Amino acid sequence: MTATLILLRHGESTWNALNLFTGWVDVPLSEKGTAEAARGGQLMAEAGVLPDVVHTSLQRRAITTANLALDAADRGWIPVRRSWRLNERHYGDLQGKDKKETLQTYGEEQFMLWRRSYDVPPPPISDTNTYSQAGDPRYADLGDAAPKTECLKDVVTRLVPYLQADIFDDLRAGRTVLVAAHGNSLRAVVKTLDGISDEAIAKVNIPTGIPLRYDLDADMRPVTAGGQYLDPAAAAAAITAVANQGR
Amino acid sequence: MTATLILLRHGESTWNALNLFTGWVDVPLSEKGTAEAARGGQLMAEAGVLPDVVHTSLQRRAITTANLALDAADRGWIPVRRSWRLNERHYGDLQGKDKKETLQTYGEEQFMLWRRSYDVPPPPISDTNTYSQAGDPRYADLGDAAPKTECLKDVVTRLVPYLQADIFDDLRAGRTVLVAAHGNSLRAVVKTLDGISDEAIAKVNIPTGIPLRYDLDADMRPVTAGGQYLDPAAAAAAITAVANQGR
Repeated sequence: MTATLILLRHGESTWNALNLFTGWVDVPLSEKGTAEAARGGQLMAEAGVLPDVVHTSLQRRAITTANLALDAADRGWIPVRRSWRLNERHYGDLQGKDKKETLQTYGEEQFMLWRRSYDVPPPPISDTNTYSQAGDPRYADLGDAAPKTECLKDVVTRLVPYLQADIFDDLRAGRTVLVAAHGNSLRAVVKTLDGISDEAIAKVNIPTGIPLRYDLDADMRPVTAGGQYLDPAAAAAAITAVANQGR
Repeated sequence: MTATLILLRHGESTWNALNLFTGWVDVPLSEKGTAEAARGGQLMAEAGVLPDVVHTSLQRRAITTANLALDAADRGWIPVRRSWRLNERHYGDLQGKDKKETLQTYGEEQFMLWRRSYDVPPPPISDTNTYSQAGDPRYADLGDAAPKTECLKDVVTRLVPYLQADIFDDLRAGRTVLVAAHGNSLRAVVKTLDGISDEAIAKVNIPTGIPLRYDLDADMRPVTAGGQYLDPAAAAAAITAVANQGR
Protein backbone atom coordinates (compact mmCIF):
# COMPACT_ATOMS: atom_id res chain seq x y z
CA MET A 1 0.00 0.00 0.00
CA THR A 2 1.31 3.44 -0.90
CA ALA A 3 0.17 6.85 0.30
CA THR A 4 0.12 9.93 -1.89
CA LEU A 5 1.61 13.27 -0.90
CA ILE A 6 1.27 16.28 -3.19
CA LEU A 7 3.59 19.25 -2.71
CA LEU A 8 2.50 22.59 -4.16
CA ARG A 9 4.68 25.67 -4.03
CA HIS A 10 2.66 28.89 -4.02
CA GLY A 11 2.35 30.89 -7.22
CA GLU A 12 4.22 34.14 -7.83
CA SER A 13 3.74 36.76 -5.09
CA THR A 14 3.78 40.52 -5.55
CA TRP A 15 7.25 40.62 -3.99
CA ASN A 16 8.61 37.80 -6.17
CA ALA A 17 7.68 40.07 -9.05
CA LEU A 18 9.44 43.06 -7.38
CA ASN A 19 12.57 40.97 -6.55
CA LEU A 20 12.45 41.63 -2.80
CA PHE A 21 13.42 39.23 0.00
CA THR A 22 10.11 38.12 1.49
CA GLY A 23 10.53 35.40 4.13
CA TRP A 24 7.77 35.79 6.72
CA VAL A 25 6.39 39.06 5.32
CA ASP A 26 2.80 38.24 4.44
CA VAL A 27 2.51 39.40 0.82
CA PRO A 28 -0.34 38.30 -1.47
CA LEU A 29 -0.16 36.46 -4.79
CA SER A 30 0.31 38.49 -7.96
CA GLU A 31 -2.19 38.12 -10.80
CA LYS A 32 0.18 35.59 -12.37
CA GLY A 33 0.40 33.69 -9.08
CA THR A 34 -3.39 33.54 -8.84
CA ALA A 35 -3.57 31.94 -12.28
CA GLU A 36 -0.75 29.51 -11.37
CA ALA A 37 -2.68 28.36 -8.30
CA ALA A 38 -5.85 27.59 -10.25
CA ARG A 39 -3.77 25.79 -12.89
CA GLY A 40 -2.24 23.64 -10.13
CA GLY A 41 -5.75 22.56 -9.13
CA GLN A 42 -6.68 21.78 -12.73
CA LEU A 43 -3.60 19.58 -13.01
CA MET A 44 -4.66 17.62 -9.93
CA ALA A 45 -8.20 17.22 -11.28
CA GLU A 46 -6.96 16.09 -14.72
CA ALA A 47 -4.58 13.56 -13.15
CA GLY A 48 -7.30 12.35 -10.79
CA VAL A 49 -5.00 13.04 -7.81
CA LEU A 50 -7.52 14.48 -5.38
CA PRO A 51 -6.47 15.53 -1.87
CA ASP A 52 -8.45 14.34 1.15
CA VAL A 53 -6.81 16.87 3.44
CA VAL A 54 -4.67 20.00 3.00
CA HIS A 55 -1.85 21.36 5.13
CA THR A 56 -0.75 24.98 4.69
CA SER A 57 1.62 27.45 6.30
CA LEU A 58 0.20 30.53 8.08
CA GLN A 59 1.12 32.77 5.16
CA ARG A 60 -1.51 34.08 2.76
CA ARG A 61 0.40 33.29 -0.43
CA ALA A 62 0.29 29.57 0.45
CA ILE A 63 -3.23 29.73 1.91
CA THR A 64 -4.65 31.49 -1.16
CA THR A 65 -2.81 29.04 -3.43
CA ALA A 66 -4.42 26.13 -1.56
CA ASN A 67 -7.86 27.77 -1.66
CA LEU A 68 -7.71 28.45 -5.39
CA ALA A 69 -6.17 25.10 -6.35
CA LEU A 70 -8.69 23.14 -4.27
CA ASP A 71 -11.59 25.13 -5.66
CA ALA A 72 -10.41 24.38 -9.21
CA ALA A 73 -10.19 20.66 -8.31
CA ASP A 74 -13.65 20.74 -6.61
CA ARG A 75 -12.02 19.82 -3.28
CA GLY A 76 -12.50 23.10 -1.41
CA TRP A 77 -14.58 21.22 1.19
CA ILE A 78 -11.78 18.97 2.57
CA PRO A 79 -10.36 19.39 6.10
CA VAL A 80 -7.69 22.07 6.53
CA ARG A 81 -4.68 22.01 8.85
CA ARG A 82 -2.23 24.87 9.23
CA SER A 83 1.12 25.33 10.91
CA TRP A 84 3.81 27.98 11.17
CA ARG A 85 6.23 25.06 10.72
CA LEU A 86 5.35 25.06 7.01
CA ASN A 87 6.20 28.77 6.68
CA GLU A 88 8.85 30.06 4.30
CA ARG A 89 12.36 30.47 5.71
CA HIS A 90 12.55 33.61 7.86
CA TYR A 91 14.93 35.90 6.00
CA GLY A 92 15.98 37.95 9.05
CA ASP A 93 17.19 41.47 8.45
CA LEU A 94 17.06 40.95 4.68
CA GLN A 95 13.22 40.90 4.69
CA GLY A 96 11.88 43.75 2.58
CA LYS A 97 15.27 44.44 0.97
CA ASP A 98 15.88 44.49 -2.78
CA LYS A 99 17.87 41.44 -3.87
CA LYS A 100 19.96 43.29 -6.43
CA GLU A 101 20.86 46.10 -4.01
CA THR A 102 21.73 43.53 -1.33
CA LEU A 103 24.06 41.78 -3.77
CA GLN A 104 25.77 45.09 -4.56
CA THR A 105 26.06 46.10 -0.88
CA TYR A 106 27.41 42.82 0.49
CA GLY A 107 29.10 41.25 -2.51
CA GLU A 108 28.50 37.94 -4.26
CA GLU A 109 30.13 35.67 -1.68
CA GLN A 110 28.15 36.90 1.33
CA PHE A 111 24.99 37.13 -0.76
CA MET A 112 25.25 33.49 -1.92
CA LEU A 113 26.10 32.33 1.59
CA TRP A 114 22.84 33.80 2.89
CA ARG A 115 20.83 32.52 -0.03
CA ARG A 116 22.20 29.04 -0.55
CA SER A 117 24.36 27.89 2.35
CA TYR A 118 22.77 25.28 4.58
CA ASP A 119 23.66 26.76 7.96
CA VAL A 120 24.44 30.47 7.69
CA PRO A 121 21.42 32.63 8.56
CA PRO A 122 21.22 36.35 7.70
CA PRO A 123 21.46 38.79 10.64
CA PRO A 124 18.33 38.66 12.85
CA ILE A 125 15.58 41.17 12.22
CA SER A 126 14.94 43.83 14.88
CA ASP A 127 11.47 43.89 16.49
CA THR A 128 11.16 47.51 15.41
CA ASN A 129 11.85 46.76 11.74
CA THR A 130 8.76 47.41 9.54
CA TYR A 131 9.09 43.89 8.19
CA SER A 132 9.35 42.14 11.58
CA GLN A 133 6.56 39.76 12.66
CA ALA A 134 6.80 40.87 16.31
CA GLY A 135 3.21 41.43 17.47
CA ASP A 136 1.65 39.47 14.60
CA PRO A 137 -1.29 37.65 16.26
CA ARG A 138 -0.79 34.47 14.23
CA TYR A 139 2.57 33.90 15.94
CA ALA A 140 1.51 35.05 19.43
CA ASP A 141 1.43 31.46 20.74
CA LEU A 142 5.09 30.97 19.75
CA GLY A 143 6.39 33.60 22.17
CA ASP A 144 10.17 33.63 22.27
CA ALA A 145 10.33 30.55 20.02
CA ALA A 146 9.34 32.72 17.03
CA PRO A 147 12.39 32.95 14.76
CA LYS A 148 13.99 36.28 13.89
CA THR A 149 16.13 34.75 11.15
CA GLU A 150 16.67 31.25 9.75
CA CYS A 151 19.02 29.25 7.59
CA LEU A 152 17.71 26.20 5.72
CA LYS A 153 18.97 23.97 8.54
CA ASP A 154 16.70 25.86 10.95
CA VAL A 155 13.76 25.28 8.61
CA VAL A 156 14.49 21.56 8.52
CA THR A 157 14.71 21.48 12.33
CA ARG A 158 11.29 23.07 12.85
CA LEU A 159 9.59 21.39 9.92
CA VAL A 160 10.56 17.74 10.43
CA PRO A 161 8.53 17.21 13.64
CA TYR A 162 5.40 18.43 11.86
CA LEU A 163 6.12 16.33 8.76
CA GLN A 164 6.72 13.18 10.77
CA ALA A 165 3.76 13.62 13.11
CA ASP A 166 0.91 15.55 11.53
CA ILE A 167 1.51 14.93 7.82
CA PHE A 168 2.67 11.31 8.12
CA ASP A 169 -0.33 10.61 10.41
CA ASP A 170 -2.71 11.69 7.65
CA LEU A 171 -0.80 9.62 5.08
CA ARG A 172 -0.79 6.54 7.32
CA ALA A 173 -4.56 6.96 7.72
CA GLY A 174 -4.79 6.45 3.94
CA ARG A 175 -5.47 10.08 3.07
CA THR A 176 -4.08 11.79 -0.02
CA VAL A 177 -2.38 14.88 1.43
CA LEU A 178 -1.80 18.25 -0.22
CA VAL A 179 0.90 20.47 1.31
CA ALA A 180 0.70 24.06 0.06
CA ALA A 181 3.83 25.85 1.15
CA HIS A 182 7.01 27.65 0.10
CA GLY A 183 10.29 27.20 -1.76
CA ASN A 184 12.38 26.51 1.33
CA SER A 185 9.84 24.66 3.49
CA LEU A 186 9.18 22.32 0.54
CA ARG A 187 12.95 21.94 0.09
CA ALA A 188 13.04 20.76 3.69
CA VAL A 189 10.27 18.23 2.97
CA VAL A 190 12.02 16.91 -0.15
CA LYS A 191 15.38 16.77 1.65
CA THR A 192 13.83 14.61 4.36
CA LEU A 193 11.85 12.31 2.05
CA ASP A 194 14.65 11.75 -0.47
CA GLY A 195 17.53 11.83 2.01
CA ILE A 196 19.34 14.63 0.14
CA SER A 197 22.64 15.88 1.62
CA ASP A 198 23.09 19.32 3.18
CA GLU A 199 25.19 20.36 0.18
CA ALA A 200 23.02 18.94 -2.62
CA ILE A 201 19.76 20.44 -1.37
CA ALA A 202 20.97 23.94 -2.36
CA LYS A 203 20.68 22.93 -6.02
CA VAL A 204 17.13 21.54 -5.73
CA ASN A 205 14.56 24.00 -7.06
CA ILE A 206 10.83 23.33 -6.87
CA PRO A 207 8.85 25.26 -9.49
CA THR A 208 5.79 27.31 -8.47
CA GLY A 209 2.26 26.08 -9.09
CA ILE A 210 3.08 22.61 -10.45
CA PRO A 211 1.94 19.82 -8.10
CA LEU A 212 4.78 17.41 -7.22
CA ARG A 213 3.46 13.95 -6.41
CA TYR A 214 5.22 11.52 -4.07
CA ASP A 215 3.96 7.98 -3.61
CA LEU A 216 5.30 6.77 -0.27
CA ASP A 217 5.61 3.24 1.06
CA ALA A 218 4.60 2.14 4.56
CA ASP A 219 7.93 3.47 5.92
CA MET A 220 7.20 6.84 4.26
CA ARG A 221 9.97 6.30 1.69
CA PRO A 222 9.39 7.56 -1.88
CA VAL A 223 8.60 4.83 -4.41
CA THR A 224 10.21 7.10 -7.02
CA ALA A 225 13.06 9.31 -5.77
CA GLY A 226 12.28 12.97 -6.37
CA GLY A 227 8.61 12.31 -6.99
CA GLN A 228 6.78 13.14 -10.21
CA TYR A 229 5.51 16.51 -11.39
CA LEU A 230 1.96 16.50 -12.72
CA ASP A 231 3.20 18.61 -15.65
CA PRO A 232 6.76 17.29 -16.19
CA ALA A 233 7.51 19.44 -19.26
CA ALA A 234 6.51 22.68 -17.55
CA ALA A 235 8.46 21.67 -14.42
CA ALA A 236 11.61 20.90 -16.43
CA ALA A 237 11.38 24.23 -18.25
CA ALA A 238 10.91 26.13 -14.96
CA ILE A 239 13.86 24.34 -13.32
CA THR A 240 16.11 25.10 -16.31
CA ALA A 241 15.06 28.77 -16.19
CA VAL A 242 16.00 29.02 -12.49
CA ALA A 243 19.35 27.28 -13.13
CA ASN A 244 20.12 29.86 -15.83
CA GLN A 245 19.19 32.87 -13.68
CA GLY A 246 21.94 35.47 -13.52
CA ARG A 247 24.00 33.90 -16.29
CA MET B 1 -17.64 37.09 30.33
CA THR B 2 -19.22 37.06 26.89
CA ALA B 3 -18.23 35.12 23.80
CA THR B 4 -18.60 36.48 20.28
CA LEU B 5 -20.24 34.57 17.43
CA ILE B 6 -20.35 36.08 13.94
CA LEU B 7 -22.84 34.70 11.42
CA LEU B 8 -22.15 35.35 7.74
CA ARG B 9 -24.56 34.31 5.01
CA HIS B 10 -22.78 33.66 1.70
CA GLY B 11 -22.93 36.28 -1.03
CA GLU B 12 -25.08 35.93 -4.14
CA SER B 13 -24.55 32.67 -6.05
CA THR B 14 -24.92 32.18 -9.79
CA TRP B 15 -28.22 30.38 -9.17
CA ASN B 16 -29.57 33.08 -6.84
CA ALA B 17 -29.09 35.38 -9.82
CA LEU B 18 -30.91 32.88 -12.12
CA ASN B 19 -33.77 32.38 -9.60
CA LEU B 20 -33.35 28.58 -9.38
CA PHE B 21 -33.86 26.40 -6.29
CA THR B 22 -30.34 25.50 -5.17
CA GLY B 23 -30.31 23.58 -1.87
CA TRP B 24 -27.35 21.20 -1.91
CA VAL B 25 -26.35 21.85 -5.54
CA ASP B 26 -22.79 23.17 -5.30
CA VAL B 27 -22.94 26.40 -7.31
CA PRO B 28 -20.26 29.10 -7.08
CA LEU B 29 -20.59 32.75 -6.08
CA SER B 30 -21.54 35.27 -8.75
CA GLU B 31 -19.30 38.30 -9.31
CA LYS B 32 -21.63 40.27 -7.02
CA GLY B 33 -21.38 37.52 -4.39
CA THR B 34 -17.57 37.63 -4.54
CA ALA B 35 -17.63 41.37 -3.83
CA GLU B 36 -20.15 40.87 -0.99
CA ALA B 37 -17.85 38.32 0.67
CA ALA B 38 -14.83 40.65 0.63
CA ARG B 39 -17.02 43.50 1.96
CA GLY B 40 -18.09 41.23 4.82
CA GLY B 41 -14.44 40.81 5.78
CA GLN B 42 -13.80 44.55 5.57
CA LEU B 43 -16.73 45.14 7.95
CA MET B 44 -15.22 42.69 10.46
CA ALA B 45 -11.81 44.39 10.18
CA GLU B 46 -13.29 47.89 10.58
CA ALA B 47 -15.32 46.81 13.62
CA GLY B 48 -12.28 45.03 15.10
CA VAL B 49 -14.34 41.82 15.36
CA LEU B 50 -11.72 39.30 14.32
CA PRO B 51 -12.50 35.57 14.23
CA ASP B 52 -10.14 33.10 15.92
CA VAL B 53 -11.72 30.12 14.16
CA VAL B 54 -14.13 29.63 11.25
CA HIS B 55 -16.83 27.02 10.73
CA THR B 56 -18.24 26.47 7.22
CA SER B 57 -20.63 24.13 5.44
CA LEU B 58 -19.28 21.76 2.77
CA GLN B 59 -20.65 23.96 0.00
CA ARG B 60 -18.40 26.15 -2.10
CA ARG B 61 -20.53 29.30 -1.91
CA ALA B 62 -20.05 29.36 1.88
CA ILE B 63 -16.42 28.19 1.72
CA THR B 64 -15.45 30.82 -0.84
CA THR B 65 -17.31 33.47 1.15
CA ALA B 66 -15.30 32.50 4.26
CA ASN B 67 -12.02 32.45 2.31
CA LEU B 68 -12.58 35.90 0.77
CA ALA B 69 -13.95 37.51 3.94
CA LEU B 70 -11.11 36.18 6.09
CA ASP B 71 -8.50 37.26 3.54
CA ALA B 72 -9.98 40.78 3.55
CA ALA B 73 -9.82 40.81 7.38
CA ASP B 74 -6.24 39.41 7.37
CA ARG B 75 -7.45 36.29 9.22
CA GLY B 76 -7.05 33.72 6.45
CA TRP B 77 -4.59 31.82 8.70
CA ILE B 78 -7.07 30.85 11.46
CA PRO B 79 -8.14 27.22 12.04
CA VAL B 80 -10.95 25.94 9.81
CA ARG B 81 -13.71 23.48 10.71
CA ARG B 82 -16.33 22.21 8.26
CA SER B 83 -19.54 20.22 8.55
CA TRP B 84 -22.39 19.13 6.30
CA ARG B 85 -24.61 20.09 9.27
CA LEU B 86 -24.09 23.74 8.30
CA ASN B 87 -25.25 23.10 4.71
CA GLU B 88 -28.22 24.88 3.17
CA ARG B 89 -31.59 23.14 3.44
CA HIS B 90 -31.80 20.27 0.94
CA TYR B 91 -34.51 21.31 -1.49
CA GLY B 92 -35.39 17.79 -2.64
CA ASP B 93 -36.93 17.40 -6.07
CA LEU B 94 -37.14 21.17 -6.50
CA GLN B 95 -33.32 21.48 -6.81
CA GLY B 96 -32.41 22.89 -10.20
CA LYS B 97 -35.98 24.06 -10.91
CA ASP B 98 -36.94 27.63 -11.81
CA LYS B 99 -38.79 29.28 -8.90
CA LYS B 100 -41.27 31.14 -11.12
CA GLU B 101 -42.13 28.03 -13.15
CA THR B 102 -42.54 26.00 -9.95
CA LEU B 103 -44.95 28.62 -8.62
CA GLN B 104 -46.99 28.46 -11.85
CA THR B 105 -47.01 24.63 -11.91
CA TYR B 106 -47.95 23.99 -8.28
CA GLY B 107 -49.81 27.15 -7.31
CA GLU B 108 -49.12 29.72 -4.60
CA GLU B 109 -50.33 27.67 -1.63
CA GLN B 110 -48.17 24.60 -2.28
CA PHE B 111 -45.24 26.80 -3.30
CA MET B 112 -45.33 28.79 -0.06
CA LEU B 113 -45.77 25.62 1.98
CA TRP B 114 -42.53 24.24 0.56
CA ARG B 115 -40.72 27.55 0.94
CA ARG B 116 -41.88 28.81 4.29
CA SER B 117 -43.64 26.09 6.31
CA TYR B 118 -41.63 24.71 9.20
CA ASP B 119 -42.29 21.02 8.67
CA VAL B 120 -43.37 20.30 5.08
CA PRO B 121 -40.44 19.15 2.92
CA PRO B 122 -40.61 19.08 -0.89
CA PRO B 123 -40.76 15.62 -2.53
CA PRO B 124 -37.41 13.78 -2.18
CA ILE B 125 -34.92 13.97 -5.03
CA SER B 126 -34.24 10.80 -7.04
CA ASP B 127 -30.65 9.47 -7.05
CA THR B 128 -30.72 9.65 -10.86
CA ASN B 129 -31.70 13.34 -10.92
CA THR B 130 -28.91 15.54 -12.37
CA TYR B 131 -29.09 17.68 -9.25
CA SER B 132 -28.89 14.80 -6.73
CA GLN B 133 -25.82 14.58 -4.43
CA ALA B 134 -25.80 10.75 -4.61
CA GLY B 135 -22.17 9.78 -5.23
CA ASP B 136 -20.75 13.15 -4.17
CA PRO B 137 -17.55 12.21 -2.29
CA ARG B 138 -18.01 14.93 0.34
CA TYR B 139 -21.12 13.15 1.63
CA ALA B 140 -19.81 9.58 1.25
CA ASP B 141 -19.35 9.20 5.03
CA LEU B 142 -23.03 9.99 5.63
CA GLY B 143 -24.29 6.92 3.77
CA ASP B 144 -28.05 6.53 4.13
CA ALA B 145 -28.17 9.43 6.59
CA ALA B 146 -27.65 11.86 3.69
CA PRO B 147 -30.92 13.78 3.21
CA LYS B 148 -32.83 13.67 -0.08
CA THR B 149 -35.12 16.54 0.98
CA GLU B 150 -35.52 18.71 4.06
CA CYS B 151 -37.92 21.12 5.71
CA LEU B 152 -36.56 23.78 8.09
CA LYS B 153 -37.37 21.51 11.03
CA ASP B 154 -35.02 18.89 9.56
CA VAL B 155 -32.29 21.52 9.28
CA VAL B 156 -32.75 22.47 12.94
CA THR B 157 -32.59 18.79 13.94
CA ARG B 158 -29.27 18.15 12.19
CA LEU B 159 -27.73 21.53 12.95
CA VAL B 160 -28.37 21.86 16.69
CA PRO B 161 -26.00 19.04 17.79
CA TYR B 162 -23.16 20.70 15.85
CA LEU B 163 -24.02 24.15 17.21
CA GLN B 164 -24.18 22.94 20.81
CA ALA B 165 -21.05 20.78 20.65
CA ASP B 166 -18.53 22.07 18.12
CA ILE B 167 -19.44 25.76 17.89
CA PHE B 168 -20.28 26.28 21.58
CA ASP B 169 -17.05 24.46 22.51
CA ASP B 170 -15.03 27.04 20.58
CA LEU B 171 -17.02 29.88 22.15
CA ARG B 172 -16.57 28.48 25.65
CA ALA B 173 -12.83 28.29 24.99
CA GLY B 174 -12.93 32.06 24.55
CA ARG B 175 -12.61 32.05 20.78
CA THR B 176 -14.39 34.52 18.53
CA VAL B 177 -16.18 32.23 16.06
CA LEU B 178 -17.18 32.96 12.46
CA VAL B 179 -19.87 30.72 10.93
CA ALA B 180 -20.07 31.06 7.14
CA ALA B 181 -23.20 29.31 5.97
CA HIS B 182 -26.61 29.65 4.30
CA GLY B 183 -30.02 31.31 4.62
CA ASN B 184 -31.72 28.34 6.22
CA SER B 185 -28.86 26.91 8.29
CA LEU B 186 -28.32 30.38 9.77
CA ARG B 187 -32.09 30.64 10.40
CA ALA B 188 -31.71 27.44 12.41
CA VAL B 189 -28.83 28.97 14.42
CA VAL B 190 -30.77 32.17 15.11
CA LYS B 191 -33.94 30.22 16.01
CA THR B 192 -31.98 28.25 18.60
CA LEU B 193 -30.07 31.20 20.07
CA ASP B 194 -33.04 33.58 20.28
CA GLY B 195 -35.66 30.93 21.08
CA ILE B 196 -37.86 31.91 18.09
CA SER B 197 -41.09 29.94 17.55
CA ASP B 198 -41.64 27.53 14.64
CA GLU B 199 -44.08 30.03 13.11
CA ALA B 200 -42.11 33.23 13.62
CA ILE B 201 -38.85 31.89 12.16
CA ALA B 202 -40.42 31.91 8.65
CA LYS B 203 -40.40 35.71 8.71
CA VAL B 204 -36.75 36.03 9.78
CA ASN B 205 -34.51 36.91 6.85
CA ILE B 206 -30.75 37.17 7.18
CA PRO B 207 -29.17 39.38 4.51
CA THR B 208 -26.20 38.11 2.48
CA GLY B 209 -22.65 39.28 3.15
CA ILE B 210 -23.34 41.40 6.27
CA PRO B 211 -21.77 39.91 9.42
CA LEU B 212 -24.32 39.43 12.23
CA ARG B 213 -22.67 39.60 15.64
CA TYR B 214 -24.01 37.81 18.71
CA ASP B 215 -22.44 38.32 22.12
CA LEU B 216 -23.36 35.30 24.23
CA ASP B 217 -23.29 34.87 27.99
CA ALA B 218 -21.88 31.84 29.80
CA ASP B 219 -25.14 29.93 29.13
CA MET B 220 -24.82 30.75 25.42
CA ARG B 221 -27.77 33.16 25.58
CA PRO B 222 -27.65 36.36 23.47
CA VAL B 223 -26.89 39.52 25.43
CA THR B 224 -28.93 41.38 22.78
CA ALA B 225 -31.79 39.41 21.19
CA GLY B 226 -31.34 39.13 17.43
CA GLY B 227 -27.70 40.15 17.57
CA GLN B 228 -26.26 43.21 15.83
CA TYR B 229 -25.37 43.62 12.18
CA LEU B 230 -21.98 45.18 11.53
CA ASP B 231 -23.67 47.39 8.89
CA PRO B 232 -27.14 47.97 10.41
CA ALA B 233 -28.35 50.35 7.67
CA ALA B 234 -27.46 47.97 4.84
CA ALA B 235 -28.99 45.04 6.75
CA ALA B 236 -32.26 46.93 7.33
CA ALA B 237 -32.46 47.90 3.64
CA ALA B 238 -31.83 44.29 2.54
CA ILE B 239 -34.46 42.93 4.95
CA THR B 240 -37.03 45.47 3.72
CA ALA B 241 -36.25 44.55 0.11
CA VAL B 242 -36.88 40.82 0.86
CA ALA B 243 -40.13 41.62 2.70
CA ASN B 244 -41.37 43.55 -0.36
CA GLN B 245 -40.47 40.82 -2.87
CA GLY B 246 -43.37 39.85 -5.09
CA ARG B 247 -45.59 42.76 -4.02
